[in-house]
Amino acid sequence: MPIRLGELAEQFDCELIGDASVIVDAVGSLPNAGPGALSFLSSSKFKKQLAATKAAAVILRAADAGDCPTAALITDNPYACYANMANVLCPPPIYEPGVHPSAVVAANATIDDTAHVAANAVVEDRARIGANSSIGPGTVVGPDCIIGDNCRLHANVTFVRSVSVGDRCIFHSGSVVGADGFGNAMTPDGWVKVPQVGGVRIGNDVEIGSATTVDCGAIDDTIIEDGVRLDNQIQIAHNVHVGAHTAMAAGCAIAGSAHIGKRCMFAGMVGMAGHIEVCDDVIVNGKGMISRSITEPGVYASNFPIEPVRNWNRLVAKVRRLDKLIERVGKLEKDSK
Amino acid sequence: MPIRLGELAEQFDCELIGDASVIVDAVGSLPNAGPGALSFLSSSKFKKQLAATKAAAVILRAADAGDCPTAALITDNPYACYANMANVLCPPPIYEPGVHPSAVVAANATIDDTAHVAANAVVEDRARIGANSSIGPGTVVGPDCIIGDNCRLHANVTFVRSVSVGDRCIFHSGSVVGADGFGNAMTPDGWVKVPQVGGVRIGNDVEIGSATTVDCGAIDDTIIEDGVRLDNQIQIAHNVHVGAHTAMAAGCAIAGSAHIGKRCMFAGMVGMAGHIEVCDDVIVNGKGMISRSITEPGVYASNFPIEPVRNWNRLVAKVRRLDKLIERVGKLEKDSK
Amino acid sequence: MPIRLGELAEQFDCELIGDASVIVDAVGSLPNAGPGALSFLSSSKFKKQLAATKAAAVILRAADAGDCPTAALITDNPYACYANMANVLCPPPIYEPGVHPSAVVAANATIDDTAHVAANAVVEDRARIGANSSIGPGTVVGPDCIIGDNCRLHANVTFVRSVSVGDRCIFHSGSVVGADGFGNAMTPDGWVKVPQVGGVRIGNDVEIGSATTVDCGAIDDTIIEDGVRLDNQIQIAHNVHVGAHTAMAAGCAIAGSAHIGKRCMFAGMVGMAGHIEVCDDVIVNGKGMISRSITEPGVYASNFPIEPVRNWNRLVAKVRRLDKLIERVGKLEKDSK
Repeated sequence: MPIRLGELAEQFDCELIGDASVIVDAVGSLPNAGPGALSFLSSSKFKKQLAATKAAAVILRAADAGDCPTAALITDNPYACYANMANVLCPPPIYEPGVHPSAVVAANATIDDTAHVAANAVVEDRARIGANSSIGPGTVVGPDCIIGDNCRLHANVTFVRSVSVGDRCIFHSGSVVGADGFGNAMTPDGWVKVPQVGGVRIGNDVEIGSATTVDCGAIDDTIIEDGVRLDNQIQIAHNVHVGAHTAMAAGCAIAGSAHIGKRCMFAGMVGMAGHIEVCDDVIVNGKGMISRSITEPGVYASNFPIEPVRNWNRLVAKVRRLDKLIERVGKLEKDSK
Repeated sequence: MPIRLGELAEQFDCELIGDASVIVDAVGSLPNAGPGALSFLSSSKFKKQLAATKAAAVILRAADAGDCPTAALITDNPYACYANMANVLCPPPIYEPGVHPSAVVAANATIDDTAHVAANAVVEDRARIGANSSIGPGTVVGPDCIIGDNCRLHANVTFVRSVSVGDRCIFHSGSVVGADGFGNAMTPDGWVKVPQVGGVRIGNDVEIGSATTVDCGAIDDTIIEDGVRLDNQIQIAHNVHVGAHTAMAAGCAIAGSAHIGKRCMFAGMVGMAGHIEVCDDVIVNGKGMISRSITEPGVYASNFPIEPVRNWNRLVAKVRRLDKLIERVGKLEKDSK
Repeated sequence: MPIRLGELAEQFDCELIGDASVIVDAVGSLPNAGPGALSFLSSSKFKKQLAATKAAAVILRAADAGDCPTAALITDNPYACYANMANVLCPPPIYEPGVHPSAVVAANATIDDTAHVAANAVVEDRARIGANSSIGPGTVVGPDCIIGDNCRLHANVTFVRSVSVGDRCIFHSGSVVGADGFGNAMTPDGWVKVPQVGGVRIGNDVEIGSATTVDCGAIDDTIIEDGVRLDNQIQIAHNVHVGAHTAMAAGCAIAGSAHIGKRCMFAGMVGMAGHIEVCDDVIVNGKGMISRSITEPGVYASNFPIEPVRNWNRLVAKVRRLDKLIERVGKLEKDSK
């Protein structure tokens, strides 16, 4: 959507250095932005890209404005400002209300008149879909799922059953919400499946990535609070509780009944054992393994970075012989007495 | 399904302390169970929840019966007993026999009269679906797939081709069974795809989680024996053999031609290299890396738990300088002689 | 497809020891090959299987020919030779041109007359599908996706939007290409979604595994070069660049804006941090964590193999007390002066 720089500056409370009447109609990266594009500089690490940019305007901090060869929008948080402005310039697509003739909707499902149900989607018994929400092609909304307003389920999403979702949530393709949790009781005859009768409750403004799975609770519900952001390929097991505004990067796996606080950030491939807690404001670095509860905010890690394999194998061998070294030191201490 | 406590006790061989005529019609957790619900106490860790429960009855061990404020069902294995009783109280849904008009079924596919094929499902050439099995909406059963009796493929499952499945198996949404294994031969012109011509053979009573992938064999079949339980987001590569009653939690990845014994239990995110073996009754803790064969039953591990990042970075630095420490100890030993 | 050994030898430049008129019509593993099957011996590790094979012919190195009880096809690279010959014997299925009546194709999409669109597939606005390409059942090709010639999208694949693909590419079931990258800006009110406006550009001869996800770029495109092979359950974040002929085994996760060179090989479950680079010809062992750029070709690793849990816990405890050991050595050194 084309908009004048002056309007953007006013709407998002930036100082504009440059011609307020210039119109931008796209976003662009500093190296590749075209003449009608808005760009941003969020870190001085990328400052060398600034001088050569052909963008119409760049969002940046006051300290960087002197080096900006184009119009500048000055703000303390260029990335957040860019996010807000980009949402104006590149709004999400709007879907025509209505149900595609190839979609199959149960007679007792309720679909708001303003909602969109795409080709070959399936909406099952007692499901409800709110105003302006869109259900992508091939997506299945199972029995007793309740979806609020302005939600978007992309193509080939599966809501299995008993999932309740607030407003303005996004579910990416391949995500599966509300499948049975992994509950099995060992008996002399092998595993007996434990029926999973809980549901999934999701707040407002939640985004769930591609191929991410959020299981139903075993008895009570699995809970994802407001504003949570889950990247792709994440596993949320039954009865996990994810606190508001917590974000996880791709490949994390959270075991059953784990409780995660608010505003936590897990980098990719973090694992968390079941039945433990992480307090608010905890950051875990990539591939970290949370095997005990964390009660203090802060940054945590547990991963070794790669090394050339020869060095690494030597290091592993030395670690495995640490007991020998400890013995040798003990002997030296004894001898020196 | 409502049932009298007396009937449950008799059917599952428990001692009942309380009124046998009381009817239960649901399950509940100790803190949240309503007055018609059956609950259970599987670990004394949760005993403090027992006193306040409003459940109609609680399944527990004899040792805990004295503290039970409600009717008690006494058993040695409360969790397994709960699983059995919950399957009576909350039986899986029953599907009407028949093929939904929007489903597409190949002329030469065979679908039992009692089976259910849901909206927008696709059943391809020569596929066979057994008695009382149900194929969920959007699910694709590819060519030459043979599905036994009483199986359930949830919504948006994909059986690619040549998958054979026994009875009473469950496949959750987003799971993919029978895709090509990862076979590539390096040549001077780049990778050449190695045709994957094997299939997948799955026994009885197997459950496969959401977004879990089980590849076809390269030449011979990939094999999953009876009673195996795979959680979500697990990768089973070509020609893997998973022994009966083995269970894996979410996020495990098993490389090609790995052979896993019976009754093994892998916690989440375990990795296993290809062409090696794990014997029966092996337990591997979360994030463990199996890079050599295991020939002795037992519990195995290889993961560091997280620490505050500052401590962790110091620890890594010290490990990397272990050779220096070893040298210093060597010098001390030499000097002390 | 049946073919004479003599023809195979000639077509792929092997020496044939045995009867050139023998016809093979299948492939088989050494232990299980039937009398009309072609087999191969790629590693002397499997040589004991050679003596008993019932295959019609075996592809192997000259050094192994003396032990071959059947006709032998002699080559320096038996596995690559097998791959080439197996592609002749077991060619991929051919699909009838045309769009299945249950598929839904946008009026402004362009589908080549020789292409195949299967049951319940959906092709959206402005999508283009090239000659001899096949779109599997339940697969969704989103707006502005351009697919070249001789590509195959298996069942239940999702191309979300703005994905461009060269020729001869394969996408396995459950893969999701072109979903939004994970872009979120923190504000005092929580996360603001950063619109993801880039696309995905994929070269020729690329194969993408089941449940693998390749996200759209944030502004510029995510790029997968020619000949790349990605196994199942891999995450490729926004703006990642994967160089030609690089292969990754299952479960890898590559964070945003990572740049990977040509001909790299990542084993399973490798993680790579964002905004760093790996040069050409780098091999990373299973579960390795790439947290810094790699500038030298070679083999890298960072994972501890499992041990019995008791040994492992002792080892972890010793590592955590390394500072104490270092202190003790320091004291000994001081005392010895």
